[in-house]
Amino acid sequence: MSRLDRQLEFLYISDRLKTVTRQNRLHDGSRDENVAEHSWHLTLMALLFAEHAPEGVDLAHVIKLLIVHDLVEIYAGDTMILSDEIAAGVRVREEAAAEGLFALLPDDQRAYFMALWREFEARETAEARFAKALDALHPPLLTWGKGGKGSRHHDLRAAQVVAWKRAYLEPYPELWALLEQTLNEAVADGILQEK
Amino acid sequence: MSRLDRQLEFLYISDRLKTVTRQNRLHDGSRDENVAEHSWHLTLMALLFAEHAPEGVDLAHVIKLLIVHDLVEIYAGDTMILSDEIAAGVRVREEAAAEGLFALLPDDQRAYFMALWREFEARETAEARFAKALDALHPPLLTWGKGGKGSRHHDLRAAQVVAWKRAYLEPYPELWALLEQTLNEAVADGILQEK
Repeated sequence: MSRLDRQLEFLYISDRLKTVTRQNRLHDGSRDENVAEHSWHLTLMALLFAEHAPEGVDLAHVIKLLIVHDLVEIYAGDTMILSDEIAAGVRVREEAAAEGLFALLPDDQRAYFMALWREFEARETAEARFAKALDALHPPLLTWGKGGKGSRHHDLRAAQVVAWKRAYLEPYPELWALLEQTLNEAVADGILQEK
Repeated sequence: MSRLDRQLEFLYISDRLKTVTRQNRLHDGSRDENVAEHSWHLTLMALLFAEHAPEGVDLAHVIKLLIVHDLVEIYAGDTMILSDEIAAGVRVREEAAAEGLFALLPDDQRAYFMALWREFEARETAEARFAKALDALHPPLLTWGKGGKGSRHHDLRAAQVVAWKRAYLEPYPELWALLEQTLNEAVADGILQEK
């Protein structure tokens, strides 16, 4: 296959991300969110919440990480992660998915996309950590933020969400406060159980 | 409203872009594409087709333009543009939509998002022109590219598509050749009429 044919093949396969559904619904509760539109919303959120990024963070790079961060779910699907055990299982499936998906690309681009995905996953750079913080904050906002309809996972508790999101969000005081406030209000409104 | 409350209001309103449907379907023909997932796919396409951007184009800025370029369709809807007359009508509706939508934001961010949207629309910068070229190329690729199912607009002709896309794509020889090849193959395959 020519270089262009490989790029087109990747473009067409990546279209499938629009059919992978997530564990949260749209803000109006009308249907499950899909992973492609979630990815777009995160890039918009990066522009909108840029002022919460620590000094020196390269926002354009944050956005590139977010464009690519969930592509592997074309093959691996979306899983709600609320524990390290679940995360470990997902990690194995996603590694295999990344190998298969990015192999469609010409070699230089395979390396480039793989590097972006691995950087996001490793969370060793300031950009990856901020991208992950937005990714962690987005579903609770859509689900329980003002006008939100609550989760379709009725057994989910505020305490679980806080426990799982803490590592990602606590380094960003305003974002962490926003999560806590959002969950507290949802508990007060009766659309989320506390413990 | 506090600054953060305005940003959140904008985030929640922007969620509606996921429910605005476009004139083209997904590549597998299963349903209409929505504008949010289209926007994501364009940002991925910018990374994938970066080598076709003219020397000196700031790809990160192209991506920012693409994140924002269709937000106004939350209020203005999506219209298939195949003539200057249709484009002029859309322009008036979208201007009003932009004023309303971006007014939700704090002043500095209203100016920032409005500037990005106006830059994309004006196509006076190299970044805006390349972003528009990707936007023009994306629906024909999904619709008639390898494995595509053709348009649900059965009266659409290849000659119309070429005539309307020429101004946006001809400055990029590889992308222009790709459009022509894609349409020629679709005509040969019987999923698109020529004239």
